[in-house]
Amino acid sequence: MTARRRQAGTVYLVGAGPGDPALITVRGRDLLARADLVICDALAPGALRREARPGATIVEVGPAHGRRALEQASINRLMIARARRGLNVVRLKGGDPCIFGRGGEEAEALATAGVRFEIVPGVTSALGAAATAGIPLTHRRHASSVVLATAHVGRGKDASAVDWKPLAGAGSAVVYMAVGRLEEITAGLAAAGRSPTTPAALVRWATRPDQEVLVGTLGSLAGLARRAGLGPPAILIVGDVVRLRPRLDWFGRRPLAGRTVVVTRAREQSASLSALLEEDGARVLEAPAIEIVPPTSWAPLDRALAALDRFNILIFTSVNGVARFFGRLEDRRIDIRDLAGL
Amino acid sequence: MTARRRQAGTVYLVGAGPGDPALITVRGRDLLARADLVICDALAPGALRREARPGATIVEVGPAHGRRALEQASINRLMIARARRGLNVVRLKGGDPCIFGRGGEEAEALATAGVRFEIVPGVTSALGAAATAGIPLTHRRHASSVVLATAHVGRGKDASAVDWKPLAGAGSAVVYMAVGRLEEITAGLAAAGRSPTTPAALVRWATRPDQEVLVGTLGSLAGLARRAGLGPPAILIVGDVVRLRPRLDWFGRRPLAGRTVVVTRAREQSASLSALLEEDGARVLEAPAIEIVPPTSWAPLDRALAALDRFNILIFTSVNGVARFFGRLEDRRIDIRDLAGL
Repeated sequence: MTARRRQAGTVYLVGAGPGDPALITVRGRDLLARADLVICDALAPGALRREARPGATIVEVGPAHGRRALEQASINRLMIARARRGLNVVRLKGGDPCIFGRGGEEAEALATAGVRFEIVPGVTSALGAAATAGIPLTHRRHASSVVLATAHVGRGKDASAVDWKPLAGAGSAVVYMAVGRLEEITAGLAAAGRSPTTPAALVRWATRPDQEVLVGTLGSLAGLARRAGLGPPAILIVGDVVRLRPRLDWFGRRPLAGRTVVVTRAREQSASLSALLEEDGARVLEAPAIEIVPPTSWAPLDRALAALDRFNILIFTSVNGVARFFGRLEDRRIDIRDLAGL
Repeated sequence: MTARRRQAGTVYLVGAGPGDPALITVRGRDLLARADLVICDALAPGALRREARPGATIVEVGPAHGRRALEQASINRLMIARARRGLNVVRLKGGDPCIFGRGGEEAEALATAGVRFEIVPGVTSALGAAATAGIPLTHRRHASSVVLATAHVGRGKDASAVDWKPLAGAGSAVVYMAVGRLEEITAGLAAAGRSPTTPAALVRWATRPDQEVLVGTLGSLAGLARRAGLGPPAILIVGDVVRLRPRLDWFGRRPLAGRTVVVTRAREQSASLSALLEEDGARVLEAPAIEIVPPTSWAPLDRALAALDRFNILIFTSVNGVARFFGRLEDRRIDIRDLAGL
């Protein structure tokens, strides 16, 4: 009972990045791969669960909107209890933990409880959207500053309580979680002095293959979004930099952008093909139409393995056959050198 | 001549992250590992060169400060010429390419030249500093917005041309490359209405083991920095969130934080020890005091390999011996099954 777990575990508050699972940091992915418990935000990319080690417990918390505040206390309790039991916990958050991610509050709770923690930053949605929508947030000719704000203010306040002046003055302004209150936000920015003709864009599911971008002006965007029926989650970008998008939209111009491809290969073998398709912009759905399974009985192979010296030639007809054959060899602890005569 | 390179290469504008080489994205590291040419900013972490594939050409451009503007045109020419020749080029930039990184301008040059490009976002320094200095940039009680600005404005302008109002109004304000003009910046923020008693911090070499953090107020920080002799590169963080640092400074409380450890193991074998030390906060210098080299002559081993059937027992005395023995076996195309009798 003494030496097994000499010390308590650590809680890692990890930014999962903006949506594309490859945009997590190397550090974040490494921590995922060795965590005992992963507590995932709904907005963290689901595909990242695959990076957790087999055997790790994965808990999903909080809907993208809504009841989160109610659940914060129980998330804190869970992290603290598990770390005290000696588990290493990854708290995976969409984007960056310290940009509208409540990373600061969770870190405070851990510090108060005396639990060791680490904050691993991530690519926040604004930077993801800038990269894949072709809207650089700063630019020597267009914007020497950028302000990041959210329309989800503290409880009991609404967007009308927000002071829009700093957003109106900065070169570029980004508002997170903007869809539900787009009318208020754009009106607030205009009232604070930003011209209604300022270019503006909504970016939904930034960096994901199903990213959607809607471009208009501060005056027109709310109406455009309503007519397009564009739902959350999306961020709003306001500023002259939006004008650069037509030239810089590399993401939408990839050969398979906007296409969905179904890969029917067996799951273990679909990764390389899926990666090639995603590289060209496709959204890939893996729907394995075949499955490679072990034989119902190993007996015929085992009999052959027991009498290897009676064979002269060994022929494999597929990569699956090779994998299963050598797997079985190892399972039966048969020395590979017994194949010497073949 | 025809089919070898069917198409032109791609230029990847990749954010290298804030300093710690493990804070690059997985996508960025994968692209580094297969690039033909890597064009590195001086502020991109040097250790990331190790992630480039052997044989890739690495070009370092631009000092951290100074002559960069002069060189921008030649950087653009280099990227365009190499991509047209069919090479895949990674343009590695400190932080995020679109936050004060000229990523937008370089992307415009590539678009104009008709060269295919991709922008891979990165963790910008402000987010890195927030995580490792324990200063969350947004916080429900303290800051519902954050503005990022730079003191390096366009040519022919100086910091007095900067409009500080948006920075004064936002919840938290971050100024990149702040050290050289700290007096002007803090005076500008105070003149724009931010109280001189507002907490403020300078973070130098954010996320690196040699990170330095200086905490004061908007009124006192410039004097503190001058007396401490703190040089660039550092970013300035202004706002109530700085008050959270004493509780959230996990980085400075790691057991080996601030220590430098010299690892004298052979270079191929130092990585695992170095990783453990860095995990605990140490700055690691690898100074291999031994080196594992091939024998001056392989002849004795080759003679033994040619007469394997005369041996009964094969004894290895170290992991290095095992690696060299089997390497030689492969070089000489000797079948591993010839060891069957041993």
